[in-house]
Amino acid sequence: MVLVEVARLRGIVLDILLTHDVPEQAAKLQTDLLIAAELRGHPSHGVLRLRRIVERIRAGVSDPRTTGRHEWTGTALLDVDGEQGLGPVVAMSALGAIRERARTTGVAAAVIRHNNHLGMLSWYVEQIAQDGQVGIATCTSEALVHPWGGRRPLIGTNPIAIGVPAAPQPLVFDMATGLVSMGKIHDHAQRGLALRPGWALDADGEPTTDAAAAINGAIAPFGEAKGYALGLSLEVLVATLTASATGTEVRGTLDSDQPSSKGDVFIVFDRPDRSVVDEIGEYLQSIRGTEPTSGTASVLVPGDRARLRREVALDHGVEVADEVWRDLSTLGKSPGNSPAKAKSEH
Amino acid sequence: MVLVEVARLRGIVLDILLTHDVPEQAAKLQTDLLIAAELRGHPSHGVLRLRRIVERIRAGVSDPRTTGRHEWTGTALLDVDGEQGLGPVVAMSALGAIRERARTTGVAAAVIRHNNHLGMLSWYVEQIAQDGQVGIATCTSEALVHPWGGRRPLIGTNPIAIGVPAAPQPLVFDMATGLVSMGKIHDHAQRGLALRPGWALDADGEPTTDAAAAINGAIAPFGEAKGYALGLSLEVLVATLTASATGTEVRGTLDSDQPSSKGDVFIVFDRPDRSVVDEIGEYLQSIRGTEPTSGTASVLVPGDRARLRREVALDHGVEVADEVWRDLSTLGKSPGNSPAKAKSEH
Repeated sequence: MVLVEVARLRGIVLDILLTHDVPEQAAKLQTDLLIAAELRGHPSHGVLRLRRIVERIRAGVSDPRTTGRHEWTGTALLDVDGEQGLGPVVAMSALGAIRERARTTGVAAAVIRHNNHLGMLSWYVEQIAQDGQVGIATCTSEALVHPWGGRRPLIGTNPIAIGVPAAPQPLVFDMATGLVSMGKIHDHAQRGLALRPGWALDADGEPTTDAAAAINGAIAPFGEAKGYALGLSLEVLVATLTASATGTEVRGTLDSDQPSSKGDVFIVFDRPDRSVVDEIGEYLQSIRGTEPTSGTASVLVPGDRARLRREVALDHGVEVADEVWRDLSTLGKSPGNSPAKAKSEH
Repeated sequence: MVLVEVARLRGIVLDILLTHDVPEQAAKLQTDLLIAAELRGHPSHGVLRLRRIVERIRAGVSDPRTTGRHEWTGTALLDVDGEQGLGPVVAMSALGAIRERARTTGVAAAVIRHNNHLGMLSWYVEQIAQDGQVGIATCTSEALVHPWGGRRPLIGTNPIAIGVPAAPQPLVFDMATGLVSMGKIHDHAQRGLALRPGWALDADGEPTTDAAAAINGAIAPFGEAKGYALGLSLEVLVATLTASATGTEVRGTLDSDQPSSKGDVFIVFDRPDRSVVDEIGEYLQSIRGTEPTSGTASVLVPGDRARLRREVALDHGVEVADEVWRDLSTLGKSPGNSPAKAKSEH
C-alpha cells in the first residue's frame, strides 16, 4: 500500500484524464467521483477504475466530450441517450436538468441509456440531499448474480441509492444487491483466502468457497429470496424505463471495448420543509443512540461509516494498492504527470 | 380451517362493510383488496384484517366516506391528506390522479399521510403494470424491526413493491423489509413452535427462539446490515416526502383506536414501448427456464407464486382459519349477513 495525500492523488488522476483529451469540466467530475470513492473507503470504485476509463476512451467506446442528448418525453421525465459519454458527466448533466425541473413539477426523473459506469451512486444522492432535495438512483450492470435457486449469473449487482436531507447530516444509503462484490471475490483469490459459505457458486453452479472458482461462477444475491427479488425487479425496472439491455446482454462496465448497454435511473423530489429535515435528523439520532447488542460498538445509520472514513482520509491521506499506484504511473503520458515522480517529491 | 368459495367470501366481506355504512364503491375496493390477499396466499393481509377495519370505523379513527384531499404541490407531485380514509380507497383515488397525470408528465408521484392500512402493496402495482404503466409503492408501518446491531424495535417492516409490464404477465414484486412478519411470530406462538435463530430478539434485546418472548421484542431486518439500511432508508424517505411519523411514533395499522400517522408513497411512470414489454417478458422467461440447483424445482420470478396460488384458489376456494371465520360471523349485524348462515346454505 502507498499512502497518498488526497490533493496529490486528485492532481494525478486529473492530469491523466486531461492527457487523454478529456475536457477540463468532465475530467474534474470524473476525478471527483473516483476520489470520493477512495475517501469513503471503497477502492473498488476508486482510482482502480481509471485504467478502464482510459482504455475505453482509447478504444473509442467512451466519448469524454458528450454530456448526453436530452429529450423530455414528459414534462417531468427526461430521456437521455448518453452517447457513450463518461458516466458522471452524462449523469450530472441529466441531474442538473431534472433537479431544476423538480422545483416546478415536484418530482422528476431521468432515464439514461448508452452511458458509461456511474461509479459510486452515493456520490450523486449525497449531493442531491446536501442541497435539500431527495434523490433515488439505481442502475443495471453486468450479470454476476444468480437467481435464488438458480446456478447461472443472470442478474446484475444492480445497486440502489437513496439520499434524504436530515439535520445535521443527510441519510446516504447505497448498496449493491449482490451479497458481495466481484471485486471482493478477486481480492480473496489474489490473497489466497477462502470465501464464506453462501457467497458464491462455481462455473457449474455448485456452492464454492474457492475464490478462483467463483470468478467464473456467480455471486449470491444479498438477503436470499427477497434480495434476489429486489435485484431482479431493479433490473427489470431500469431496463424497461431506459429501453436498455438485461441479463447477460449487459456490457461496458467490466470490459474495455464494448459500448455500454446498461441503464441508469434517477428520481428527484423537491425539497421538504425544514421542520421535516430536523425531525428526520432527530429520528436518526435516536437510532444512533439506541442500546447496541453485545459485540456492537454503536448502531450506525446509512452514510455514517463513509463519513467517518472520509474525515480520516482527508487528514491522513488515502491508501492506494501498490499495483494500482504503478498503474497510475503508466497511465500518465509525460514524466511530469507520473505518480512515481509525485511520490518522490512527497 | 374452513374452505370457502371465493364469491361467497367476497359477498360476506362486502356485506359486513356495507352494514357498517361504508359506501358501496369504497366497500368494493376494500373487499377486493382483502380477497386478493387471500387468493395470493397472504391471509395475514386478508379477511383477518376486517375486524380491525370495522373497529376503527366504529371508533371514529377511520372515515369510510372520504377519498382524501388532493393538492398538487408540483405538476407531477400529488400531496394527499388521507383524512383517515380507508387505505385502498384513498390510495386508489390518488393513483387514479397520478396515473392520468403521468400520461403528460411521464412520471408522477403521490405522497399520502393520514391514511389507513394499504394492505398488500402488490394489489396496487399489479393493476398499474397490467394497464401498461410502471409502478413503485412503499410505506411506513409500526416499529417492529431492530436496527442492525441494536436491541429495540425502531423501524417499521416498511414494504416496497414494484410492478412492471411484461409479456405475458407483469413482474409483480412486493416484500416487507423485516426478515419475517409479526403475524408469523404470533402464528408460531399460538402453535407452540420455535422460531428460527436470527429471526427475533426478546424484550431485553437478546436473541430468542421463543415466539411468545419475541412478540414483545423485535424482528430482525431481512438481509442483515444491507436490509436494515434499506428498511431505514425507506422509513426516512417516506416520512420525509409525506411529512408523517417515524419509528415508535407510527400508529394506526396495528391498533383499533389511534389515528393513522404513517405515510404512503406511490410513483408511476408512463407506459413503455410494446417492444420493451416483449423483451422484458423474454428475459423473465430465461430466468424461469434457467437450470435450478439441486433441491429447487424451478426458479421463480416475483409474482409467479402468488399467481399460481390465485389460480388454485379461484378453482378450489380459500381456506379461512376457524377463528377468523367465526369472527366474520360476529362482524355481520343481521342474521342475513352471517357467514354461519352462508355456510349452512353452502
